[in-house]
Amino acid sequence: MIDLGFSPAQEMLRESARGFLAKEAPKSLVRRIEAEHLGYSEPLWHQMAGLGWLALPFPESAGGADGTLIDAGLLAEELGRAALPSPYIHTVAAGLTLLDAGKTGLIEDIISGALIVVPAFTEADPRPIPQAVNLAIVPASSGGFTLSGLKRFVEYGHAAHLLLCSGRTDGGDSERGISLLLVPGDAAGLERRALATTGGDPLAELAFNGVAAQADALVGELDGGWSVAGKTLNRMLALRAAEMAGGTRHVLEMTVNYVKMRVQFGRALASFQAVQHLCADMATMADGAELAARQAVWTVEQGLPSDHEVSVAKVFAAQAYRAATVNAVQLHGGIGYMQEYDLQFYYRRARAEEVLLGTSADHLERVAIALGL
Amino acid sequence: MIDLGFSPAQEMLRESARGFLAKEAPKSLVRRIEAEHLGYSEPLWHQMAGLGWLALPFPESAGGADGTLIDAGLLAEELGRAALPSPYIHTVAAGLTLLDAGKTGLIEDIISGALIVVPAFTEADPRPIPQAVNLAIVPASSGGFTLSGLKRFVEYGHAAHLLLCSGRTDGGDSERGISLLLVPGDAAGLERRALATTGGDPLAELAFNGVAAQADALVGELDGGWSVAGKTLNRMLALRAAEMAGGTRHVLEMTVNYVKMRVQFGRALASFQAVQHLCADMATMADGAELAARQAVWTVEQGLPSDHEVSVAKVFAAQAYRAATVNAVQLHGGIGYMQEYDLQFYYRRARAEEVLLGTSADHLERVAIALGL
Amino acid sequence: MIDLGFSPAQEMLRESARGFLAKEAPKSLVRRIEAEHLGYSEPLWHQMAGLGWLALPFPESAGGADGTLIDAGLLAEELGRAALPSPYIHTVAAGLTLLDAGKTGLIEDIISGALIVVPAFTEADPRPIPQAVNLAIVPASSGGFTLSGLKRFVEYGHAAHLLLCSGRTDGGDSERGISLLLVPGDAAGLERRALATTGGDPLAELAFNGVAAQADALVGELDGGWSVAGKTLNRMLALRAAEMAGGTRHVLEMTVNYVKMRVQFGRALASFQAVQHLCADMATMADGAELAARQAVWTVEQGLPSDHEVSVAKVFAAQAYRAATVNAVQLHGGIGYMQEYDLQFYYRRARAEEVLLGTSADHLERVAIALGL
Amino acid sequence: MIDLGFSPAQEMLRESARGFLAKEAPKSLVRRIEAEHLGYSEPLWHQMAGLGWLALPFPESAGGADGTLIDAGLLAEELGRAALPSPYIHTVAAGLTLLDAGKTGLIEDIISGALIVVPAFTEADPRPIPQAVNLAIVPASSGGFTLSGLKRFVEYGHAAHLLLCSGRTDGGDSERGISLLLVPGDAAGLERRALATTGGDPLAELAFNGVAAQADALVGELDGGWSVAGKTLNRMLALRAAEMAGGTRHVLEMTVNYVKMRVQFGRALASFQAVQHLCADMATMADGAELAARQAVWTVEQGLPSDHEVSVAKVFAAQAYRAATVNAVQLHGGIGYMQEYDLQFYYRRARAEEVLLGTSADHLERVAIALGL
Repeated sequence: MIDLGFSPAQEMLRESARGFLAKEAPKSLVRRIEAEHLGYSEPLWHQMAGLGWLALPFPESAGGADGTLIDAGLLAEELGRAALPSPYIHTVAAGLTLLDAGKTGLIEDIISGALIVVPAFTEADPRPIPQAVNLAIVPASSGGFTLSGLKRFVEYGHAAHLLLCSGRTDGGDSERGISLLLVPGDAAGLERRALATTGGDPLAELAFNGVAAQADALVGELDGGWSVAGKTLNRMLALRAAEMAGGTRHVLEMTVNYVKMRVQFGRALASFQAVQHLCADMATMADGAELAARQAVWTVEQGLPSDHEVSVAKVFAAQAYRAATVNAVQLHGGIGYMQEYDLQFYYRRARAEEVLLGTSADHLERVAIALGL
Repeated sequence: MIDLGFSPAQEMLRESARGFLAKEAPKSLVRRIEAEHLGYSEPLWHQMAGLGWLALPFPESAGGADGTLIDAGLLAEELGRAALPSPYIHTVAAGLTLLDAGKTGLIEDIISGALIVVPAFTEADPRPIPQAVNLAIVPASSGGFTLSGLKRFVEYGHAAHLLLCSGRTDGGDSERGISLLLVPGDAAGLERRALATTGGDPLAELAFNGVAAQADALVGELDGGWSVAGKTLNRMLALRAAEMAGGTRHVLEMTVNYVKMRVQFGRALASFQAVQHLCADMATMADGAELAARQAVWTVEQGLPSDHEVSVAKVFAAQAYRAATVNAVQLHGGIGYMQEYDLQFYYRRARAEEVLLGTSADHLERVAIALGL
Repeated sequence: MIDLGFSPAQEMLRESARGFLAKEAPKSLVRRIEAEHLGYSEPLWHQMAGLGWLALPFPESAGGADGTLIDAGLLAEELGRAALPSPYIHTVAAGLTLLDAGKTGLIEDIISGALIVVPAFTEADPRPIPQAVNLAIVPASSGGFTLSGLKRFVEYGHAAHLLLCSGRTDGGDSERGISLLLVPGDAAGLERRALATTGGDPLAELAFNGVAAQADALVGELDGGWSVAGKTLNRMLALRAAEMAGGTRHVLEMTVNYVKMRVQFGRALASFQAVQHLCADMATMADGAELAARQAVWTVEQGLPSDHEVSVAKVFAAQAYRAATVNAVQLHGGIGYMQEYDLQFYYRRARAEEVLLGTSADHLERVAIALGL
Repeated sequence: MIDLGFSPAQEMLRESARGFLAKEAPKSLVRRIEAEHLGYSEPLWHQMAGLGWLALPFPESAGGADGTLIDAGLLAEELGRAALPSPYIHTVAAGLTLLDAGKTGLIEDIISGALIVVPAFTEADPRPIPQAVNLAIVPASSGGFTLSGLKRFVEYGHAAHLLLCSGRTDGGDSERGISLLLVPGDAAGLERRALATTGGDPLAELAFNGVAAQADALVGELDGGWSVAGKTLNRMLALRAAEMAGGTRHVLEMTVNYVKMRVQFGRALASFQAVQHLCADMATMADGAELAARQAVWTVEQGLPSDHEVSVAKVFAAQAYRAATVNAVQLHGGIGYMQEYDLQFYYRRARAEEVLLGTSADHLERVAIALGL
C-alpha cells in the first residue's frame, strides 16, 4: 500500500538527529574536518555510535536496533543537510554485506563505532562493470591470498580500519571470478594516499603491493563476489542519494531564509516573483530527489531488484543537487561564493557526489540495461 | 511507514484495466472520439462504470466500493497510457466534493455512469486564485440564484450533465464570497461552445446568461466555496498528474519497443549508446512523474495540506511528459510526427495538459506560497 | 573583419519582404495551403519569383541578381517568420548545385519560378551518412540510367518539377559510388505519395520502380556525388536554420505583444516579473539561433568547410525554436493551443523541423566528427 | 555586411597571444597568483603591456595602437582560455571611459602598464540599476568632494591604482544625480579588504570613510554619470563574455584531448557515442557563447545601443561555461575535481563569473527592459 509518510518513531529520530547535528556538527567543525588529514571527526563518530545510529539497520540478533535501511536513509538525509563528512553510509553498506556473509562477529564493533569498514571497489575505469575489476587476488600456499593492484577514489579509504575490496580470483573480465576480501587498513604492503579534491570529501588511492590476507578474509563465495559487491554498492548508492537529497533540501531552506531576510529598498528579495519561481523550482527538485531516493532505499530494503531505482535516484539527486546550488548561488549573488559563507560546502559536495560512485552517464547506462536495451 | 508498492488487489486492478483499455479503447476509437463533437465515448463510459471504476473512490455507505483516491489514481495512470479522452478524473473529483457536501443522493447516478459532473472553475484569468473568480451569482427572490458570466477552458463542459460552478455571491476579490453551485448542462440561458484545440481534448466555453439555479444547487456553504473548490481542484490535479505520468510511461515503452525493433544495417537502434541514454533519460523522467503524482494523490487522500505536493506533481508531470515526447520524436525521426503513427496523441496531450488546470508558472506560484514566500 | 550588421540594401530587402508576406501571405492563406494537396501556393511562388527572390543567390552570368546566400538566408528568416510553406530553400540549394555542375540551362527557369527542384536524399535510415544511400542507379544500355528504390520524407517531393536524387551507381556503402541524378517529377515508374503529418509541412514518399533517366541527368561526376550532395545539404540546412530562427523571432514578438496587451485586474501580464523573464529567455534563444544560423550561412557562402557550423546551427535552431514555443504556450495559457490562434503553426513547425533534415542527435554526430572524435 | 571571420592581422594577434600565455602563464603561475594577496602577476602585467595589449583599443592620438574593442575581445578570449587572473578587461573598459571623458593624460600610463584602473560600481544591492547607487559624494568647500559609503565585490579593488567610483551627488534614486569620480587606491580614509572566494578571482570590499577627492577627479558631468557608468559596464561585460567564451572553448578542447587519450580496454573514451554527444554538445555551447560575445563586443564597438546584446551575451556565456564544465567533469570522472588537475580553475571561474557583474536574472531583467516590457 502506497505510503509516503514516516512513522512517528522515525519522525522523532529525524528530529533528534537534526538537533544533535545542529549542536555538535556546526560548520566550524566541518571546516576543521576538511582541513585535517583524517577526513572525519572521531569524537563525533563515537557520539553517533552512542546514539545508536550504527546499530539502527542491524537486527537484534547481531546486537542491532532492528531498524531498517529506511531509518539509515533518514539519517543519511540529515548528514547531507549538515554537509558533515563521515563514513556512515559506507560502513552501514559494508556492514550489512558482512552480516549477509555471516561475519556477524564484526557487527558488534561496527555498532560500537570501533570499526570503520568501507567498500573499495573503484579502479582505473570507474564504471560499475565487471570488466573494470582488475586487482589481482592470488591464492597463497598458506591458504590465504595475496592482493596486487590499485584502487582509486575510495571514500575514506585512507582512514578506514577495514577495506572491503573487490578483485579477480579468476581471469577474464566476466562477473564470475570476482571475489571480495576484507583487508585491514594497516596491512603490510598497502600504501594509502589521500587525494586533494575540490569537493572536500576525503578520497584515497590504495596501492596493494602484494598485500597478504588470511583465508577467512573472504566475504561471500570465491569467484562469486560480483553480486555481493553489487548489493553493497546499491545500498551505499541509495544512502548516498538520500544524503544528496538532504543536501538539496538544506540548500533550499537556507536560500528561502536568505531571500526572506534580505531587504532591498524596503522590499524583501522574497517578494520578487522571479525569486519566488527560482525557489519553487528548487523545492520541486528537492521533492523529486527525496522521492527518488526514498524509492531507491525502499526497493533495496525490500530485497527487490534495484539497479533501476538506485541509478534513477543517483541521477535525480545529482541533477537536483546541482541545479539547486546553481539557483542558490544566483539568488545569493556574490555572497554565495564567499569562503566564509556556508553555501560553498553544498555546491562543492554537489559537484563531487555527482561523479563519485558513478557519473550520471554511468547510471543512465545501468538504467538502459534494466530497460532491456 | 514508507511504502512504494501497490497492494496485490491494486496490481490486479491495474492489470485488468490495462487489458480492458487495450481491447476496448484502441487508437482507432480515440481517433473517432477526437473527430466527434461529444469528446468521449458514451458506450465505453458505461462499460467503465460497469467495471466499477466510478464506484472505486466512494464509500460503501454511498453505494461505492470503499476504495481510495489511490485506486482512482491508478486508473488515471492507465487512462493516460491509453490517451483516452474521458471525464473520469473530473467526475471523480466533483463527486467526492458532492459527497463531502452531503449530496449523497447524486453519488448513485455517478457510480452507475448516468451522471457526468465536471468542475467549471476557470475564467478569463486562468490562475487558481480567488481574484480570478468573477462569475456573478445573485440570490433570486425565489430563494434560488441567478448566474451571469463566462467560464473558459472547461474540460468536457459542453457534454457534462452537471457543472460544478464557482462564482461570486459576495463582492470584492477575496476568498470569502465565493460559492459553488451545481448547474445542469442543459439549463436555460446557458450557452455551451466546444473549442477546437490542437490537443485533442474536449474543452468548452460556457456563457451564463442569467441562468437560474435552485436553492439546493448550493454545494458547501454560501460564501465559503473557495476552500471546497480548492479541494476539488487538488483532487482533479492529483489525478491529472497521474494521468500524465501514465502517458509519459507509455511514451517510454512505445519508444523502447520501437528502438528495439528498428534495425539499421543489421544493427538495432537500441544498440546505439546515444539511443540508450535518451531512453534511460525518459525512464528517469517517467519515474519522477509517477513518484510525484503518487505523492500528490496520497497526500490528498490523507486529507493533509496538499497545495505544495499537488503543484509539484503537476509541474513535474508537465516537464516529464513534454521532455519524454521530445526525446521520443527525436528517436522515432520522421515517422514520429506522421498522423498515422500513435505518438502524436501523446505529444498533443502533453502540450495541452501542460497548460490546462494551471501552467507550470501558476503552480510554481502556489509552491512559493506554500514555502512562505 | 567581424561584422554583424546587414548592409542597407539587405535591410531594404528584409523590409520589403516582410511587408510583402504580411500582405500576401496571411495565416488564412497558410491554413488553406495546409488543407490542400499541393503544399504551397503557386500564385505566391510566382509573385516571389517576380520580386527576384529566386534570382538573388545566382550570378548575373546565369541570369541572376548577383546576391549571396546571405541574402537568401535573410529571405528564409522572413519565410520562417510567416510560417509560410514553400520550396524556396530547397530550390535555392538544388539550383546552386546545378550551377556548380554546369547545368546553367536550368537556372533561368528556376529564377523565373517555372521550375521547382528539390533534393531527394533521405531513405529508410535518415542519417546523412553514405551508408544510408541505397537507391539503386543502374546504367542502362542506352547510355542512361534506371533508378529503383525508395526515398522518404522528401519535402515537396510530390510537387516538385525536378528531383535531385542520390543513389548508388557502385556497390558497397562508402562515399565513393554515390551519384546524383535529376529526375522529372512526372517520370514514368515514379510513384509519389504525400504524407500526412502533424507539422503541416508537405512531405512525400517516392517509390522509384525502374525509373529511366537520360545520360545527361547526371549532376556532378559518376560515383562522385557524395560531396555534391553534402554541399547541397549544407546549403539547405543553413537556410533551414535561418528559417527556424525567423520562426523563433516571430514567436517571441507575438508573445511580447500578447503579454503587453493582455490585462489582468488592471495590470498588464507584461508587468509580471516571471513573464518578463520568460520573454527575455526567449529573446536570448532567438538571438542565439539567429547568430548560429548566420554563421552557418556565412561559412557556406565563403566556401569554407561547414559541417560543424551548419550542424551547430541546426541543433541551436531546433532547441531555440522548441523552447521558445514552449515558453510561448505557457505565457498564452489555454488560448495558445486553440486551432484558431496562430501560435499553433509555429509549434507544429518547430517540432517537424527539429527532426527533418536530421535530428539533433544526427547533427551532434556530425559535430563530433568535425571535432575529430 | 555579415562577416564572421577575423582579419589575418587579428589571427596573428591571437596566435601570438596564445603562444605567449602558454609559455608565460602556465597553471603553476595561476596557482601562485591565487595563493597570493595581490591577485594578479605584476611582471606578467608589464609583459602584456610590453606586447602592446593595453595600447590596442586606444587611438594613436592617445598613444594607442588604433585597434578596436574587437581586438581587446580577442585577447579577453585568450585570457579566459588561460584562466589567468588579471585586471585587463577592467582597465580597458575604465580607460576607454577616461578617454571619452577627455582624461587623455592618464592613457599613456595605462598603456605602459603603470596604471591599473578598475570600475567600482557595485554596492549592497548588486543589480545594475540607479537605485542601487548610494555611496554619498558630498561637494567639499575646497571645490573637491568627500566620499562616504561601501562598495562590494569590486574585482581587483584592493590592488588597483585608481578606482572609478560611482556615487550620489544628488539625492533620490533616479539616474540623475549619479556621478563618477576617480579615487586613488591609497587614498586616506579608504579601507580595502580582499575577500576570500571559491572562485579564485580577487574581489574587494571598499569602505569609504570620508575619502577626499579633488575637483578634477570627476569623470563626465556632475550628476550625469549614470550613462557613463552604463557604457563602462557594457564594455567590461562584453569583454567578460568574451573571456568566458574563451574559457568555455578551452574546457571543450581539454576534454576532447582527454577523451581521445584516455583508453579503456583498448578503446578510447572518444569512441563511445555518449561521450561524442556530450563533447558535441559542449562545442555547440562554446560556439553560441563565442558568437553572442562577439555580437556584444561588435555592438559596443559600433556605438550602438547595446544593453540587449551585452546582457544576452552574459547570460549565454554564463550558461555555456557552466554547462561545459558540468559535461567536462562528467567526462573526466573523479580526476575532474582533483586539486592537481587543471579543470578546477575553469569550473570555479564559471561559477564566480556567473554572478559577478550581474547574475543571469539581473541580465534577463535588462533584456526584458530592452524588449519594452
